[in-house]
Amino acid sequence: MEGILVFHEQRVRDLMNMKIFVDADPDVRLSRRIRRDTVERGRDVHSVLEQYAKFVKPAFDDFILPSKKYADIIIPRGGDNCVAIDLIVQHIRTKLGQHNLCKIYPNLHEIPSTFQTRGMHTLIRDTEISKHDFIFYSDRLIRLVVEHGLGYLPFTEKQVITPTGSIYIGVDFCKKLCGVSVIRSGESMENALRACCKGIKIGKILIHRGGDETQLIYEKLPKDISERHVLLMDPVLGTGNSASQAIELLIKKGVPESRIIFLNLVSAPEGIHYVCKRFPHIKVVTSEIEEGLNDQFCVVPGLGEFGDRYFGTDDS
Amino acid sequence: MEGILVFHEQRVRDLMNMKIFVDADPDVRLSRRIRRDTVERGRDVHSVLEQYAKFVKPAFDDFILPSKKYADIIIPRGGDNCVAIDLIVQHIRTKLGQHNLCKIYPNLHEIPSTFQTRGMHTLIRDTEISKHDFIFYSDRLIRLVVEHGLGYLPFTEKQVITPTGSIYIGVDFCKKLCGVSVIRSGESMENALRACCKGIKIGKILIHRGGDETQLIYEKLPKDISERHVLLMDPVLGTGNSASQAIELLIKKGVPESRIIFLNLVSAPEGIHYVCKRFPHIKVVTSEIEEGLNDQFCVVPGLGEFGDRYFGTDDS
Amino acid sequence: MEGILVFHEQRVRDLMNMKIFVDADPDVRLSRRIRRDTVERGRDVHSVLEQYAKFVKPAFDDFILPSKKYADIIIPRGGDNCVAIDLIVQHIRTKLGQHNLCKIYPNLHEIPSTFQTRGMHTLIRDTEISKHDFIFYSDRLIRLVVEHGLGYLPFTEKQVITPTGSIYIGVDFCKKLCGVSVIRSGESMENALRACCKGIKIGKILIHRGGDETQLIYEKLPKDISERHVLLMDPVLGTGNSASQAIELLIKKGVPESRIIFLNLVSAPEGIHYVCKRFPHIKVVTSEIEEGLNDQFCVVPGLGEFGDRYFGTDDS
Amino acid sequence: MEGILVFHEQRVRDLMNMKIFVDADPDVRLSRRIRRDTVERGRDVHSVLEQYAKFVKPAFDDFILPSKKYADIIIPRGGDNCVAIDLIVQHIRTKLGQHNLCKIYPNLHEIPSTFQTRGMHTLIRDTEISKHDFIFYSDRLIRLVVEHGLGYLPFTEKQVITPTGSIYIGVDFCKKLCGVSVIRSGESMENALRACCKGIKIGKILIHRGGDETQLIYEKLPKDISERHVLLMDPVLGTGNSASQAIELLIKKGVPESRIIFLNLVSAPEGIHYVCKRFPHIKVVTSEIEEGLNDQFCVVPGLGEFGDRYFGTDDS
Repeated sequence: MEGILVFHEQRVRDLMNMKIFVDADPDVRLSRRIRRDTVERGRDVHSVLEQYAKFVKPAFDDFILPSKKYADIIIPRGGDNCVAIDLIVQHIRTKLGQHNLCKIYPNLHEIPSTFQTRGMHTLIRDTEISKHDFIFYSDRLIRLVVEHGLGYLPFTEKQVITPTGSIYIGVDFCKKLCGVSVIRSGESMENALRACCKGIKIGKILIHRGGDETQLIYEKLPKDISERHVLLMDPVLGTGNSASQAIELLIKKGVPESRIIFLNLVSAPEGIHYVCKRFPHIKVVTSEIEEGLNDQFCVVPGLGEFGDRYFGTDDS
Repeated sequence: MEGILVFHEQRVRDLMNMKIFVDADPDVRLSRRIRRDTVERGRDVHSVLEQYAKFVKPAFDDFILPSKKYADIIIPRGGDNCVAIDLIVQHIRTKLGQHNLCKIYPNLHEIPSTFQTRGMHTLIRDTEISKHDFIFYSDRLIRLVVEHGLGYLPFTEKQVITPTGSIYIGVDFCKKLCGVSVIRSGESMENALRACCKGIKIGKILIHRGGDETQLIYEKLPKDISERHVLLMDPVLGTGNSASQAIELLIKKGVPESRIIFLNLVSAPEGIHYVCKRFPHIKVVTSEIEEGLNDQFCVVPGLGEFGDRYFGTDDS
Repeated sequence: MEGILVFHEQRVRDLMNMKIFVDADPDVRLSRRIRRDTVERGRDVHSVLEQYAKFVKPAFDDFILPSKKYADIIIPRGGDNCVAIDLIVQHIRTKLGQHNLCKIYPNLHEIPSTFQTRGMHTLIRDTEISKHDFIFYSDRLIRLVVEHGLGYLPFTEKQVITPTGSIYIGVDFCKKLCGVSVIRSGESMENALRACCKGIKIGKILIHRGGDETQLIYEKLPKDISERHVLLMDPVLGTGNSASQAIELLIKKGVPESRIIFLNLVSAPEGIHYVCKRFPHIKVVTSEIEEGLNDQFCVVPGLGEFGDRYFGTDDS
Repeated sequence: MEGILVFHEQRVRDLMNMKIFVDADPDVRLSRRIRRDTVERGRDVHSVLEQYAKFVKPAFDDFILPSKKYADIIIPRGGDNCVAIDLIVQHIRTKLGQHNLCKIYPNLHEIPSTFQTRGMHTLIRDTEISKHDFIFYSDRLIRLVVEHGLGYLPFTEKQVITPTGSIYIGVDFCKKLCGVSVIRSGESMENALRACCKGIKIGKILIHRGGDETQLIYEKLPKDISERHVLLMDPVLGTGNSASQAIELLIKKGVPESRIIFLNLVSAPEGIHYVCKRFPHIKVVTSEIEEGLNDQFCVVPGLGEFGDRYFGTDDS
C-alpha cells in the first residue's frame, strides 16, 4: 500500500511504495489551524498563536519540511486540490483492486471483480449449495474466464464497411487456437469454450496424482497443436504439479510457452509461483486468487474437490 | 487529455484537466544542461554557462517558476522519479482507455475492451457477415453486457463455509430484479439475461417510432415491477427518444430512476447525452460508444438496423 | 375403437370401423366346445353333443355365418393364428395411441408421447411449480415440438461419402424456411427454433385479443416470406381466432397454406377444428391435445396464461 | 417383408412372415376378368369365357384355392375392401419403418426417423462437412437420443391441479438417475444429458482398446450408483467389446442390468447382437442402425472415428 505523508527515518521510508508530500503555504497552514482550534475546539486565538510559534512552527521546520525532499509527489494547496486527490484516490483503488501477485507476475491476470462475480464465488464455495446451482454458477464464472482469456490472443488490424456505409477500424482476432482440458475437472470448461469458439478443437490429458508424483496416463491432442494457441483448462490451480506436467507435455509437442493461456477458476499462490516462475511466458487467467494451501494441499478457502462436486461423484 | 508542464496564460490553463509541475533543484537543472549541451551537442562549457546566466535562468524565474503555484501536482527530481512517472503514465492510460463521455457521466459504463470484444464488434459491423455469425457474435457481446450490467446491482455481505472448512467472506447479490425488453431488437437480449438469471421475469414494451414522435403501443410488465431492479434492454441507443419513453414508463410504474440499468450493445453520444442528462440516476451499460448519428439519425459507424439483421427481416 | 366379431343388424355394423370374422372349420369348433364343456365345466359328452346339434349349430348357421359376408377381414384357424392376432393387436394399439382428432385431420400431428413427455407436461401444468422449472420444462417440450415439426419439411435425396469410404443414401432437408412467432407467448418458442436452425429468420406478429374480436396491431416479417416454409409459433391453441388471423396474414403475404407448419405446445379441440377446417392444407404439430375450452374460453386442463407464466407477468 | 398371396410349396410358405389370401366370390372374379379383358385388352367375350372355363377356373381350383387353408388372414371382397387394405398397408409401413433387429430384440429402440433426422445423419456422415457443423448436427441428434432414452425410465402416477383449477392426470418420472460416459467420445453426449436433467451426476470410464483386448484404465463413478438408473453414453456401438466392458463394470458396481439404458448415435448389428445377447435386460437406444463392420472393425457406412471428428484430433 501507499505510504502517506510524514516520515522521519530512512527505515520507514524504504518500506513505502510512494511518498507524498502535501504542501501548503505557511500562512494558509496557520489560518487553517486558527480556524480549527477556535471554532471547533473553542480555544482563544492568543493561545493558538502562542502554541504555533513555540511548538508547531519549529516542529514543522525540523521534522516535516526536511522530509519534502524525499517525496515522490508533491501536492500543493492541500485538501482543496481536488485534481490531485482524485488522482491519488484512483491510483490507490486500482492497486487495491489488483492482487499483489499480479504486480509480481505480469502474465497473471485476474478477471475484473464485480459484486456479481463475488456473489457467484460466494455461492459455489458454499458447502450448502445444490448440485444444480453449483454447476450453474461455475459455468457462468468459467464463461467469464474463457472470454477474458480469449482477450489475450493476438490480432491483426482490420477495417470493415458497416451497413451505414461507414468504415469501422477494428481487429481480426486469431482463430488458430485449440483447447486442452485436464481430465476430469478441466472438462467442465469445455462447454464455455465451445460456446465462444464454434467447432474449436479440444485435446485432453489425463494425469494421475498420487502423493507428490504425477503421471501422465492418457493424452489425445490435435495433431497440428504446435501451430496453435492453446487454452489449457483446469479449474483449480493448487500445488501446480499437474499443471506443470500438462504444460511440459504441450511444450514437448512443440507449443511455444508464449502461446499457452492457462485458464483457472481459482488459483493458489503456491501454484501461481510454481507455474509462473517455471514458465514465465505462459499467461495465467483466473477468476480469483486464493489464500493458500492447507496441510492436505487443498486450496483454502477453495471450493473443495471441484471435479467431484461438478460431476456428482462426491458423497452428496 | 492531460495538460503537461509549462503554461503561461490563464486561458490555456483553464483548458487543462491536470496541471503538473516537474520540479528540480537549480543545481541539478544546470548540471543536466551542461551535460546535454557539451556531450550531446558538442558545445563548450563556458558558452553554456554564459547562455544559462543570460537567458535560461532569467526566463525560468520569469516564466516557468511563477506557473508552479497553479500546478495540481508537483513532481520533484524530474526524470529520475520513476514512482511519479509511473503514477502519471498509469493515470493517462486509464483515461485514454475510457471514453470521454464516461468521464462526464459517472453512471455511463463501457464494458472492458479486449481484442476479442473489438474483434467481435468488427465482425458484427461488417455488412458481409453471414446471418448466423451476426447472431452468434451479437449474442456473445450481449452476454458480456448483461454480465457487466449485473455487476452494478446492490449486494449485502455474506459469509459461507467452504468444503475445506474455511470461511469465505463474500457477498449476496440482489435477486429482486427483472428484465424489460424494447420490442423487437431488445428481445435479442432476453436469452443472455435468462442464461445468467434463471427464471427471471421479463416485461416487454412496444414503441412506434414515426418521424420525431414515438408512441407506446403495447406494454406487459411484471406487476410488482416497482419493487424490482430493472434491466432495460435495447441493443442500439440512437437519438434516445424511444429509450426516454421506455424509461418514463418505468418511472411512471413506480420504478425509481436509480434502480434502472439500461443495457446497450452500441450507444451514440447523442442518445447518451439525452438519456444521461434527463435521467442522471439511471446506469447505462454499453459495449461500445459510437461516433454519432448521421442525417437519417442512424448510428455511425453502427451496425445497421439491428432488429432487421438479427431477426432476418432485412433484404439479405 | 374397433368393432370385434359378430353383428346382426346393419345399424350396429355401420358404427364399426373394422369388422373381423374369426373363422374355424366346423369340426374344430365342435371339438373345442367338447373339450371346454367336459374338462372345464364338468359336463358329459352326450349332453354337449345334443346341445350342439339342437341349438349351437342352427344358431351359427342362422346368425353367425351370414355375418361373414360383411367382414372386412377373415381370420382363419381362430385363436391359434398368432400372426393375425398380432396384426390386430398392433393395429388397435396404434389407434389407441393416437388422438381421435389425428384420425379426422391427417395434417394434425401429436409428438410421440413417452413417460418423459407426460412427466414434463405434469410439471408445467402444476400451479405449484417454480418459475424456473416452468420455463425449463416448457423449453424442453417446445424443443421436441420444433424438432418434430421440422420433420414435415420437404427434402430431396442426397448421397454422401462417409469417412470409411462408404456411400450413405440420405436426404437433404429444405433450408428455405423461417419462423413467425405470435407475440408474446409465441416468442418463447424462438429459442428452440434457433437452437435447431442456425441463423433462421424470425418474423413477429402482434394480435390484440379483445372479446371475440382480434386485431392485428404489429407485424414484421421476412421480405421473402412467400418463398419460404413458415413455422408459425404459438404455444397454446385455444379458440383458434388469433391463430386464424395469423394464418390469414401469412396467406395474404403469399405463403401457400401447404407451406405453413403451426407449432403448439397444447391445443384445444375447438381450435383444432376451427383451424384445420378453415385451412385444410396447413400442418398442425402439438405436444398434447386438451379436453376443451371452459366458459372463459380457457384451455382445460391447460396450463394457464402461458405468456404470463413464462415471462413472469402474472401475480406470482 | 410380407409374403403376399399365392404360394404352392411348403418351402416358400415357411419363408413368409404373414400369408394373406385375397378372397372374392367366383362370379365377382369372372365379371372382373371379363371387364378387364374386353375393355382393357380388346378381346371378345366368348374367347374370354372359353379361356376361363378351360384354364383359369381349373387352375384356381387346383392351385389357388387349396392355398387358402394356409392363410393367416383372409381378405374378402378383394380390391374394394379399403378397410383391410388400409390395415395391411399400415402394418407393412410400420414393419418397414422398424429395423429387423428391433423385432428380434425387444429392448433395442431406434428413435423415430423423420426427414429431419435423416438429413442430419446425411450431414454428419459426410466427409466434407465443416467441423462446426459436424458438432452442431451431432449435438442435435444426440439430444433426440437422450430425450428418447429418458422416455424409458420408470414413473409413477401423479395428479396435479392446473391454473384453470382442473385436474391433470399425469406422471412423475424417475429422478434417481445418473449418466456414465465412456471417455472420449461418450463425453460428447454429456451436454445433451445435462441440458435435459439439471445437475445430473455423471460418471466416467476410460477403456483402452488395443487389438481385441480392452482394458479399463480409469473410472470415476457416483458412489451411490447402485441405487440409480444409469444412462451409459457412447455414440458408436461397433464390435461391442468396450460397451460390454463398461456394462460389466456397472453390473459389478451393483447396478442391475434392467436399470441400464445404453445410448448410441449409430450402432452396428454386430455390436447389437453382442450386447443384447449378453445383457438381455439392458435397453439400447440408438438413432440409426448401421450396415455392419468392415475389415478394420469400423462401422459402415458409419461416420468415422467419432471422438476424433468431434474433438478435432483428426488430421483435418
